[in-house]
Amino acid sequence: MKTQKILPWKTLSSKITYKTPWCSVKEDTVQLPNGTIINDYNVVQLRDVAMVFALTKDKKVPFVRQYRYGVNKVLLELPAGTYIKDKEGPEEAAKRELWEETGYKAENFIKLGEVYDYPTKDSHSITIYFAENLSYVTPDYKEVSEDIEIVTLPLEEIDDYIKNGEISVA
Amino acid sequence: MKTQKILPWKTLSSKITYKTPWCSVKEDTVQLPNGTIINDYNVVQLRDVAMVFALTKDKKVPFVRQYRYGVNKVLLELPAGTYIKDKEGPEEAAKRELWEETGYKAENFIKLGEVYDYPTKDSHSITIYFAENLSYVTPDYKEVSEDIEIVTLPLEEIDDYIKNGEISVA
Repeated sequence: MKTQKILPWKTLSSKITYKTPWCSVKEDTVQLPNGTIINDYNVVQLRDVAMVFALTKDKKVPFVRQYRYGVNKVLLELPAGTYIKDKEGPEEAAKRELWEETGYKAENFIKLGEVYDYPTKDSHSITIYFAENLSYVTPDYKEVSEDIEIVTLPLEEIDDYIKNGEISVA
Repeated sequence: MKTQKILPWKTLSSKITYKTPWCSVKEDTVQLPNGTIINDYNVVQLRDVAMVFALTKDKKVPFVRQYRYGVNKVLLELPAGTYIKDKEGPEEAAKRELWEETGYKAENFIKLGEVYDYPTKDSHSITIYFAENLSYVTPDYKEVSEDIEIVTLPLEEIDDYIKNGEISVA
C-alpha cells in the first residue's frame, strides 16, 4: 500500500491528573504537525485486555454471558480479562482467563493480533489469541465479581448471533 | 438461546470524581448479586462513537489513515468520530464524519449495530452504519487536529489487511 507521510504529534508536557488502582487520566500539552498546540489533551489509561477465540474439538466456540457494570447490560463476549503489563504477559492472561471463565485449557495459543478500541484518547490495547485442541479442567473460581454463564456456540452460527445483536462486544 | 438468569449489580452511590470537557470518571459503590460490596468501582465516560462501513459504486471501502495520540501510532480505520448525545444523534454523526473525512455522501445509512469495547469500566458505545450508493462532494475541512489520508480498499482485500495487522482498530 502506497501511503502519504502522516506525522506524529509532539508531547510538550504530560501530567497524570487522576489516578486510582483501576484507571488513570493524563492531561498532555501536544503540538500538531501544523504547529497548533492543544494544552488539555486527555488520555485515559485502562488496563490492557487479553481475549481468546477458542475452538473445541467439536468445532464450538466458548463465549461467556456476564453483567457489565460500565454499560449496565448482560453481554455475550469472548472470554477476556485485563492484565497488568509488569506482572503478566498477554498470553499468560489469555490462558488464565480462558481457564478461569470456561474451564478450557490448551497447549498452544496463537496470537491473532493486537487492536485498539479508542485510540484517540485511550491507550489500552486488546490482544486476541486463537486456541484449539481444548481440554476441560474444572476451574476454581476466584474472582469475586464474576457471575457468569458459559455458552458454547457452533462456529457456523456465530455470524447469526452477531447479526442479531446478541454478541455486541468489539 | 436458553440462558441462565444473570443479575445486575446495584448502585448504592455514585459520584463523579474527575471531569474535563473530554472525559469523566465516576467512582461508584456497588453491590453484587452475592452481597459483596465494592466501594471504589470506576467507570470512565468517553464520548460515544459513530462509525461507517461504506461501499462505493465500484465496490471499494473508504478507510482513513490518521495519527492517534492515545496509542502513539498511525492507524488505518473506518471513518468514525465522536458525538455528544444531547446535540447530535449517531446517524447524523456518521454522515458528518464520512463526509468530513472522505468526501463521500450517501442518502441511506443502515444501522448495523451498537457495540461496546470496554463494558466493564467504560460506558461509551460505538454505533456502526452501512452506507452505499456514495457520491463525492469535496469536504471543507474544519477540524484542526485531523491530518488524514483517504485509502479506498477493494472489498475483497479487506480480510488480508486485517490479517496483516494493517487494520487494527476494533
